[in-house]
Amino acid sequence: MAQQFSRPRAGLILALAVLALGAVGEAPLLAGPPRPDGALDLMPAPASVTLRDGRFRIDEGLTIGREGAAPPPAGTDERAFKAAARFMSRVSGRTGLFLKQDYLAAQPAAAESGIRYVFERPGRLLPNEDESYTLTVDPSGVLLDAETDIGILRGLETLLQLLSADEKGYYFPCISISDKPRFTWRGLLIDVGRHFHPIEVIKRNLDGMAAVKMNVLHLHLTEDQGFRIESKVFPRLHELGSDGLYFTQAQIRDIIDYAADRGIRVMPEFDIPGHSTSWFVAYPEFASAPGPYAIERKFGVFGPAFNPANERIYPFFDAFFKEMAGLFPDPYLHIGGDEVEGHQWDANPAIQAFKKKNGLADNNALQAFFNQRLLKILAKHGKKMVGWDEIFQPGLPTDIVIHSWRGPKSLIEAAGKGYQSVLSNGYYIDLCQPAEAHYLNDPLPADSPLDETRKSLVLGGEATMWSELVTSETIDSRIWPRTAAIAERLWSPASVRSVEDMYRRLGPISLALEESGLLHLKNPDMLLRRLVQGPRIRPLKVLAEAVEPLEGYNRHGQAVYTSLSPFTRFVDACAPESLPAVRFGFEVERFLAAKDPRIAEGLRRVLARWKDNHALVLPLVASSPALREIEPLSFGLARISGIGLEALDALAKGEPRPAAWITEKNGILDEAAKPAAHAELAVVKAIGRLVEACAGQAR
Amino acid sequence: MAQQFSRPRAGLILALAVLALGAVGEAPLLAGPPRPDGALDLMPAPASVTLRDGRFRIDEGLTIGREGAAPPPAGTDERAFKAAARFMSRVSGRTGLFLKQDYLAAQPAAAESGIRYVFERPGRLLPNEDESYTLTVDPSGVLLDAETDIGILRGLETLLQLLSADEKGYYFPCISISDKPRFTWRGLLIDVGRHFHPIEVIKRNLDGMAAVKMNVLHLHLTEDQGFRIESKVFPRLHELGSDGLYFTQAQIRDIIDYAADRGIRVMPEFDIPGHSTSWFVAYPEFASAPGPYAIERKFGVFGPAFNPANERIYPFFDAFFKEMAGLFPDPYLHIGGDEVEGHQWDANPAIQAFKKKNGLADNNALQAFFNQRLLKILAKHGKKMVGWDEIFQPGLPTDIVIHSWRGPKSLIEAAGKGYQSVLSNGYYIDLCQPAEAHYLNDPLPADSPLDETRKSLVLGGEATMWSELVTSETIDSRIWPRTAAIAERLWSPASVRSVEDMYRRLGPISLALEESGLLHLKNPDMLLRRLVQGPRIRPLKVLAEAVEPLEGYNRHGQAVYTSLSPFTRFVDACAPESLPAVRFGFEVERFLAAKDPRIAEGLRRVLARWKDNHALVLPLVASSPALREIEPLSFGLARISGIGLEALDALAKGEPRPAAWITEKNGILDEAAKPAAHAELAVVKAIGRLVEACAGQAR
Repeated sequence: MAQQFSRPRAGLILALAVLALGAVGEAPLLAGPPRPDGALDLMPAPASVTLRDGRFRIDEGLTIGREGAAPPPAGTDERAFKAAARFMSRVSGRTGLFLKQDYLAAQPAAAESGIRYVFERPGRLLPNEDESYTLTVDPSGVLLDAETDIGILRGLETLLQLLSADEKGYYFPCISISDKPRFTWRGLLIDVGRHFHPIEVIKRNLDGMAAVKMNVLHLHLTEDQGFRIESKVFPRLHELGSDGLYFTQAQIRDIIDYAADRGIRVMPEFDIPGHSTSWFVAYPEFASAPGPYAIERKFGVFGPAFNPANERIYPFFDAFFKEMAGLFPDPYLHIGGDEVEGHQWDANPAIQAFKKKNGLADNNALQAFFNQRLLKILAKHGKKMVGWDEIFQPGLPTDIVIHSWRGPKSLIEAAGKGYQSVLSNGYYIDLCQPAEAHYLNDPLPADSPLDETRKSLVLGGEATMWSELVTSETIDSRIWPRTAAIAERLWSPASVRSVEDMYRRLGPISLALEESGLLHLKNPDMLLRRLVQGPRIRPLKVLAEAVEPLEGYNRHGQAVYTSLSPFTRFVDACAPESLPAVRFGFEVERFLAAKDPRIAEGLRRVLARWKDNHALVLPLVASSPALREIEPLSFGLARISGIGLEALDALAKGEPRPAAWITEKNGILDEAAKPAAHAELAVVKAIGRLVEACAGQAR
Repeated sequence: MAQQFSRPRAGLILALAVLALGAVGEAPLLAGPPRPDGALDLMPAPASVTLRDGRFRIDEGLTIGREGAAPPPAGTDERAFKAAARFMSRVSGRTGLFLKQDYLAAQPAAAESGIRYVFERPGRLLPNEDESYTLTVDPSGVLLDAETDIGILRGLETLLQLLSADEKGYYFPCISISDKPRFTWRGLLIDVGRHFHPIEVIKRNLDGMAAVKMNVLHLHLTEDQGFRIESKVFPRLHELGSDGLYFTQAQIRDIIDYAADRGIRVMPEFDIPGHSTSWFVAYPEFASAPGPYAIERKFGVFGPAFNPANERIYPFFDAFFKEMAGLFPDPYLHIGGDEVEGHQWDANPAIQAFKKKNGLADNNALQAFFNQRLLKILAKHGKKMVGWDEIFQPGLPTDIVIHSWRGPKSLIEAAGKGYQSVLSNGYYIDLCQPAEAHYLNDPLPADSPLDETRKSLVLGGEATMWSELVTSETIDSRIWPRTAAIAERLWSPASVRSVEDMYRRLGPISLALEESGLLHLKNPDMLLRRLVQGPRIRPLKVLAEAVEPLEGYNRHGQAVYTSLSPFTRFVDACAPESLPAVRFGFEVERFLAAKDPRIAEGLRRVLARWKDNHALVLPLVASSPALREIEPLSFGLARISGIGLEALDALAKGEPRPAAWITEKNGILDEAAKPAAHAELAVVKAIGRLVEACAGQAR
């Protein structure tokens, strides 16, 4: 069958799953609906899939190898070889099979019964490199064919997602896949400036990226809150600007190698001329106002900015970027350029005189002047400039890349003028928005005004993990699994847009991502154990099913967060988006559409659990001062779950409720929607839908 | 009160806990008994504790700083300062308090209301350095006083273990502690040879070691299965001998610095002349038999050994150890020396001739000759030799250290001849033995024949994490929390020996160790999720409460394990020792002693859960081929749990059971005691005690 993503027949299946799971006391919605017949869990969805009958069974004799009798030219097979070894280790890990092949040693050409891969040439880590592959599984073996070894890597991830089990053992289903990415720039930005994240965090996220076929790691290395990379030329930068929290150059090389092994580019960002307080701890003379400066602890947009009128900064940048250009092989170097607050420039008479002298009408023109100077420096060291929207000013060559954080309009504008661009607006995963919002955010929507030539200038997008509110304990749960939805938007055909199927597949991909060492599923439990100072966390886990952190920038309104604040509260143990809450919402809609009592029964179980949970939360709150703030959330959840149950009763009886009842319940729902503990209930709207349905619709 | 470790009044308390927890469907025994009145959770137990009335309450204004108006001499406060910063971060993390002090920046001398620390001098990372401290908490603040900054580090860990909560918030109880270690060498060996464990594994375990006041990390860097350290002098060693899995020298320096910041020495081991296959991949000519050699994948004692008759090995070792001596600042260097299998030596005519020529009677004498040569090389590079029992041969100077893996007899022998020694026999944590066995294994037991002078030569001990059967996913759960019991044996007074209280405190310390990023509590769930390919793992968790990996070397009898085998099966998700099973055993004994029906009720709940669990395990087994092997364990647990319930019924009625009944049940218990899935049921003996009690004892 070619249509792999049919809609789940989830009503019945979910009801059965709820019954089965209810018996063991597990969260009924956590397990998610089973895979619909014939559907696959592939994510991102390939460009073309034909599923056939038959299975290639795997056992301890499974082998992998490059096809062809002659050994490949020296050095050309290393990346694919290493990827094949990781693949075999993951197969062994998932199946418990004691594979006989010594896959860490030389892999002889696989026999026809094994997994054979073949490619023409090593891929280059550049935009528009060929990442396509075809994958054919038949009962006797697997053939993976690609132009480049990077295509092989992408195909091996697909193959691993096909690993299945039946009563006879493990197998790959017979299938033909032909696949290639829609966009060539599929990135994840990790902000190590505001909170530092050490190399193991970066590495496990690189593995996560590879699993969903992303190919650009954008390291946001400098910020007001920290200068996070060793400079051997100007060591005071990291020595004074980082609290000792920075990457050594050896670590950067390690990251680059690790990424390259996974077909991922590493693009560094040095955010200038604003967002640069940490540089000035060592070099206050380069700022636009006198120092001294200290590492910024708070978050926001701050005044300190480089002084473009100070001639001495240009030789400094020349030497600095020479060093960094030598360290990072990627042809692109991101110079930030966003949110120059301007106050320091306005207050500095020398800068005002400089602007006048050079005919620079405003601060935008001054920044353009600065960028022109930088551009020459980068060009001298062989780098192309990337910058945020603000750098898009007249006079820059068209080989720069505009990185859009402000909105799709800038993509269109840039493309109109022949500039390449990358979209991050709509992919701000730090804002704790639903995966759906990111998923439907297409860099080239169907109504794009661009012609085909201009469209090709839109290179792709990047999920941005800004790190004001994340530590190394919580960052994985903020990135994953939602970023897999963005990865699919950037890889898969535009027509792959079923939100519900995306959510269904997020469950399995989230589990698979744990193989990379990602802590997104593990650390919430740990944070809860720490909060209760004991192992008894179930009531908190049940509550967390229905709670999400405040969206957008609202959490900053609840407290003055700094880089030293604790990110160990209940809100930090809640997923940015609760998949159980999402599923609850889908089930409510399904029930309202069909009025199927079996669906109602599933909803009832969940609501009853949430309602009864409050009594279990209270003793935990009483014994842990750090948990006191969650009492209103737990109380609110119990209250609105009770309303949900009342509404289901009314709907079951087919008795519309009077307007006064509706008004009263909506009042309670509004009350429950208020933030508490920097978080909010995620199921208010869905329960509101049940209440609303009581107004008139009867069976 | 000075007697902090009173016995728990656990009967009643556990029964209540079981009732409370049963209601939420959580594992009744998992939470463990609550802390008895007046007891503390300190581990290792301090030498002297006086708990007083009163509490020092902490809030956002908490500060820490070195006492004294004048700033300390440059460089002397760095280690204590960093430790204080980590301390504050952990307090913030546990309490959720937004501390106002910028504890990453300069810490001004703390006011009287904060935490003040004072020490005389930076400690040296050497045996017999002063690690003592006194800690005084009164309602107005904390004073931590030590001779060295290392003492401050030890005291800060104690203070963190004192952090408590009540209805008013968080506090430290008023207390006076005077503490110092009993032994000066409190080590953990991590074998990175058989399975490599990257730097983040080492770092998180260093933090774990620091939390329980251990002070020696012994890195077993070379083995038949891998050469795990970069040599710039002989790069082919790591290039050919490691599959690319090794520490760079930059990483080694990072580890050493990280350890030093925590008051921990790093001692490298290069195991020669045996256990050395991986060296010979690059240098077959140094072996005692012709090559070629390949990295060993299997485990055991292998033939390849350096050829002591080959004069060329000595300049090689001279250059190699010169390089390593420069890398590792510790004065001790471990040369292994264990288990030289001898076959290669016996089969090599040149070696036989060499022995004859030099009057070396046997292979022991040949190894002694080799060691004498090595000793000169180490001495030249400023290192003292450490080696396993086998190096203890005539003619070595008394400043070497004998590392005993064979047994306490060698400690006594060595001390008798004036040699220092370190005990690892009895601390083999890889063997999955109970913490109790390690805990009661005293390097200097009460009946030691040594006089006081000789006793001082017994420096301490090391837990040994041999890594045949562990990967980076499972190693933490093999090390922790049991190693905390060893840490207590080596730090605390010999009189601290209550096994039950040790087990009680293992629970809280295990949770606290998660702060170090240790995955011992998190990864078992992940492995179970991977096995079921879904989130529904509760039945497996219930089963795992009653299952432990086979002890000793028995697991090797179940399969031919290699370094490529999957360590992702159910057995790998089971703790080496199940604390719930241990607690079940204690409760059975308590019940048999008192026949208290409330205790019986608690046991009944647990047994019923284990009995009913089998029906929930079966569907998981059916859908996951990798889980099939656990069916006998689950069936067996259900069966013997039923027997336990029958026995409790009989005991409740006061009706002795006939001998035939006892025989029949014991037969079933014997059957259930058989290994399956490389594991075994851990509660057979305790249930057997209930059966046994039915034989005659009636109420």
